[in-house]
Amino acid sequence: MSLQSLMMLFGVQFHPEVAHTPLGAQVLRNFLFSVCGCRGDWSPAAVIQEQIARVRDQLGDNARAVSGLSGGVDSTVASALVHCAVGERQTCIFVDNGLLREGEFESTLALLQQGMKLNIVGVRAGWLFLNALKGVTEPEEKRKRIGKIFIDVFEQEAKRLGDVAYLVQGTLYPDVIESVSVRGPSAIIKSHHNVGGLPKKMTLRLIEPLRELFKDEVRVMGRELGVPEEILTRHPFPGPGLAVRIIGEVTEERIRLLQAADRILDEELRLAELYHSVWQAFPVLLPISTVGVMGDERTYERVVAIRAVTSVDGMTADWARLPQDVLARISARLVSEIRGINRVVYDISSKPPSTIEWE
Amino acid sequence: MSLQSLMMLFGVQFHPEVAHTPLGAQVLRNFLFSVCGCRGDWSPAAVIQEQIARVRDQLGDNARAVSGLSGGVDSTVASALVHCAVGERQTCIFVDNGLLREGEFESTLALLQQGMKLNIVGVRAGWLFLNALKGVTEPEEKRKRIGKIFIDVFEQEAKRLGDVAYLVQGTLYPDVIESVSVRGPSAIIKSHHNVGGLPKKMTLRLIEPLRELFKDEVRVMGRELGVPEEILTRHPFPGPGLAVRIIGEVTEERIRLLQAADRILDEELRLAELYHSVWQAFPVLLPISTVGVMGDERTYERVVAIRAVTSVDGMTADWARLPQDVLARISARLVSEIRGINRVVYDISSKPPSTIEWE
Repeated sequence: MSLQSLMMLFGVQFHPEVAHTPLGAQVLRNFLFSVCGCRGDWSPAAVIQEQIARVRDQLGDNARAVSGLSGGVDSTVASALVHCAVGERQTCIFVDNGLLREGEFESTLALLQQGMKLNIVGVRAGWLFLNALKGVTEPEEKRKRIGKIFIDVFEQEAKRLGDVAYLVQGTLYPDVIESVSVRGPSAIIKSHHNVGGLPKKMTLRLIEPLRELFKDEVRVMGRELGVPEEILTRHPFPGPGLAVRIIGEVTEERIRLLQAADRILDEELRLAELYHSVWQAFPVLLPISTVGVMGDERTYERVVAIRAVTSVDGMTADWARLPQDVLARISARLVSEIRGINRVVYDISSKPPSTIEWE
Repeated sequence: MSLQSLMMLFGVQFHPEVAHTPLGAQVLRNFLFSVCGCRGDWSPAAVIQEQIARVRDQLGDNARAVSGLSGGVDSTVASALVHCAVGERQTCIFVDNGLLREGEFESTLALLQQGMKLNIVGVRAGWLFLNALKGVTEPEEKRKRIGKIFIDVFEQEAKRLGDVAYLVQGTLYPDVIESVSVRGPSAIIKSHHNVGGLPKKMTLRLIEPLRELFKDEVRVMGRELGVPEEILTRHPFPGPGLAVRIIGEVTEERIRLLQAADRILDEELRLAELYHSVWQAFPVLLPISTVGVMGDERTYERVVAIRAVTSVDGMTADWARLPQDVLARISARLVSEIRGINRVVYDISSKPPSTIEWE
């Protein structure tokens, strides 16, 4: 007989923290409030103050930071927070990696410069990324190469700016859990470019004020910090951008094709007033061709997959039950408006066992 | 001014014969019955008698035929018809090409031998086909190689049987339209293995009694000929079998994976009483892997696409609006029961511009 059974202690492993677990939140609530006596007085304002103090502490009186702005919720809120802490000592660098949505670089830059008082530099470096991705098909390799170029660009800009010692990143807790084993034995699911993808001998030190937060908490904080609603309600967008939504090699032509598909999907979801009811929705370009028929001619063209999910925190997700007439319209527009696509599929997998992004 | 405009004749090209065209059938009906004075006295019995007479004429008093039985509607009805015409002078050859559904060879052979009085030989030749497909990824090349081995096997069996001069095939009119330009300028959409895939110097001459018929007409004829309902209501299955549903190279492991997926899809559709309301439903195995998560582990496994369509004649087709809870159940079973699959997509493309099969 083992010690455990003598002590009458038996364990069952499950995941109460996962949104899919029935009553999981209640289990945690009972434990925290009734057993441990926690008070549940988390407030965005309190976290903001705490983080501002911590950032001020890290940067001291003179140190300067660059921030990696992607135009997404996470990096914008992180930058807004650091801006509150050290103002103009933070320079935000918004890199056009050539892997953004159609027209996103220009529109986001304008929004961040005019809507917020951030100190921003826009850097066009699409060709650098495209070059680094030439011939690469393995997803982890793509993420690593993109992460490396990102850091190269940041370091170069930092050098140009003079005495910069810190890099601000909008890393969230789920990114951390899935990339490295921080506080527990989670295996590596994928290396998020702003976590596992960092080179070992980087000269900039990291500031990650959102590292222990979830996306829904970050949105609440962002609202408190005055981040424009348009940015706060945007669907999450991966650091490596469209590169992880082009299965196989990334080429300029494929990026353009995927951008066109993304625009159509976005338009149709907003038109159907579904954009804000899904957590994330995007097209994926598959590296396979299938037979089709156009007029009396045979075609042999690409397949696009549509991925749309509902989720509370991105850790688990259900495929979105989009109305079938909306799916039919998206499918019809994709094949008729984009030359090179003749088939559309809809991802009907949940996370787990799938993930939200394909790579 | 052209001659046409002087004659006041103007043309508009469209497809009244296609089920998607509103009132197309009415246009044809008006033309045939009101303008041309046709009578519309088509009856399965009449066509059967006509075809029986024609087959008897072709085979004369002594010639013998082999029939390529696939277990599908078309070849079974063709064989039943030729059986009515020349009885035991036709030997049906049912080839296990290793590309059939799970257990299909055994169950179909039993059904055809017991349920109908056909003269059948079952040939196990899976390894021949698998060998011929090694390293082949191009869809047309797959179809051609499979067609060639089929004919090789038939000819060998025919030689073994002695003095055989004819090969019976269940070719339908849509196969003909999409394979070769017979009676009009349709371009080649795909070479159906029992049409375009035939080698030029084949020693057997063809008998194709269904060559001018559509699938719905063939089902009616089959009923008249006493073909078991289980065969008549079966979904169409392509000549090259699962090979055209495995995108990329065909391997034994992939066949087993796809067979398992096919069985689950079939079970769920029958359980939901949807099997007979769709024209065709099948899984397709994609040659791409995507990231997933299982427990705390990262997975990198295959994607399966589900294709289900509604159609009247196979010439045009709509993606089937299957209930979302059925799709969810199919998806959940595929990823949990089949090791090696972690993502499922549903094809939401119609024909045109897609086709029903992917290759």
